[in-house]
Amino acid sequence: MPSSTVRNARREITGFSNPTVKYLRSLREKKHRKREGVFLAEGLRLLTDARECGHVPQMLVMAAGRDPHPLIDALEDTVAAAGGEVIVTSPDILSKITGKDNPQSVAGVFAEFDTSLASLNRSAAKIWLVAQALRDPGNLGTMLRTGDAIGAGGLILIDDCADPFSVEAVRASMGAVFTQKLARATFDEFLPWLRGGDGQLVAASLRDAVPYRGAPYAAPSFVMVGNESQGLPEAYEMACDLRVTMPMKGRADSLNAAVAAAVLGYEVLEAMRS
Amino acid sequence: MPSSTVRNARREITGFSNPTVKYLRSLREKKHRKREGVFLAEGLRLLTDARECGHVPQMLVMAAGRDPHPLIDALEDTVAAAGGEVIVTSPDILSKITGKDNPQSVAGVFAEFDTSLASLNRSAAKIWLVAQALRDPGNLGTMLRTGDAIGAGGLILIDDCADPFSVEAVRASMGAVFTQKLARATFDEFLPWLRGGDGQLVAASLRDAVPYRGAPYAAPSFVMVGNESQGLPEAYEMACDLRVTMPMKGRADSLNAAVAAAVLGYEVLEAMRS
Repeated sequence: MPSSTVRNARREITGFSNPTVKYLRSLREKKHRKREGVFLAEGLRLLTDARECGHVPQMLVMAAGRDPHPLIDALEDTVAAAGGEVIVTSPDILSKITGKDNPQSVAGVFAEFDTSLASLNRSAAKIWLVAQALRDPGNLGTMLRTGDAIGAGGLILIDDCADPFSVEAVRASMGAVFTQKLARATFDEFLPWLRGGDGQLVAASLRDAVPYRGAPYAAPSFVMVGNESQGLPEAYEMACDLRVTMPMKGRADSLNAAVAAAVLGYEVLEAMRS
Repeated sequence: MPSSTVRNARREITGFSNPTVKYLRSLREKKHRKREGVFLAEGLRLLTDARECGHVPQMLVMAAGRDPHPLIDALEDTVAAAGGEVIVTSPDILSKITGKDNPQSVAGVFAEFDTSLASLNRSAAKIWLVAQALRDPGNLGTMLRTGDAIGAGGLILIDDCADPFSVEAVRASMGAVFTQKLARATFDEFLPWLRGGDGQLVAASLRDAVPYRGAPYAAPSFVMVGNESQGLPEAYEMACDLRVTMPMKGRADSLNAAVAAAVLGYEVLEAMRS
């Protein structure tokens, strides 16, 4: 359909107390996201990545008075053609919705994905990242972003992790929430699933470990990092096929969780290339 | 002096409106830290690291009713012996001071360090980390933590970076703010300083770059990452002695700044070892 027709479907919102604004703002809280089964993502780059990966928002929110941009037009056309809603509002209201002082020019409401282990195809990638009880949404998003960079298949969240659909995690993922697969499970669910097929479970550890450089990584390799303060439970480390150590030359005995995943992830990537 | 004598110097604070509590809370804002020339650090592990590196807080704040701990006693003795002040207060007030729901049992007020380039001894380490216009205090603290792990000499902050003495940066550094040297400079100050001695400036780049793996790193290597959204200015990349690329297998063309510094930092560390 011609885009002039499509653009007639825009709805304008001017008041902070509008129910749609309240609905959108509520999505910054986990309980509301969970109830609605949706999450919020912001930014033209991120929404364009989403569109190109086949994720079309149910609702597109645009700031009024923005400069025209062919990618925004493309987003608007895609959303309208899919039967979604296009909202135009003030930059102030968009700022209120995303909780950011300098809001991006667009935000979208997306349906949450299937995050069951069953939805993963382990042979689709040589590397998978696994996070256990990761509490920081920024670390979680950063792991998704790193996963995209190293060509991982996705991120498996073990036990009680931060919500991957939080605004902070989605933002830190820089769009990788749309390109990486996501699964959530307890360790007791994950381990039998892993053992039901090929897969090497790898973790950084101080226990009975070999140097991370040149370790015998094997695809598909599941690279696991633990909670920010506690690290991995000993039983989880012991269930690994490969435990590796990274040099720690200073006073500290651990790295930031997202950093550890990245250093190890790049090492596994190099091993898979050679 | 016997610690029983020392502990008589404790001052108890029970009210939220106490001027000392207001002073301590004010240190969460940069302008107050700057005016006072001090910063706040929290946690027994972190304060013990500080003490063992020769950094004694001017003021030590302890939660009342804590379980006795020899490391807290050691801290208290060191602070009192150095003429510092020891404050005992409620967990609620300590929580208010640090802005954390589950406060650590201790916090300390430390004098800011000399952060001039002149204070750095470049031959003290083979690796130095450099961050340009880094805006996120968490990323900054994480870079300090990574620097400690790879045996870097310290972190050089170029142009307008987040405050390394913010509560968030100090927290994310996990104590490395006390073990790593810190310097702040504009790029126009940094480059002549660098060229006044040995030093290879390295950055991840897409311009005229070689693969990061096996690149000709040379000590002392100054590993530079750029701003979270903009990356490094082209002129800064062009001033580098070595530009390296990391594999990017997905849709994104960059890593989180702290992640990039870590992956590159570990690669340089490996090159220096072999």
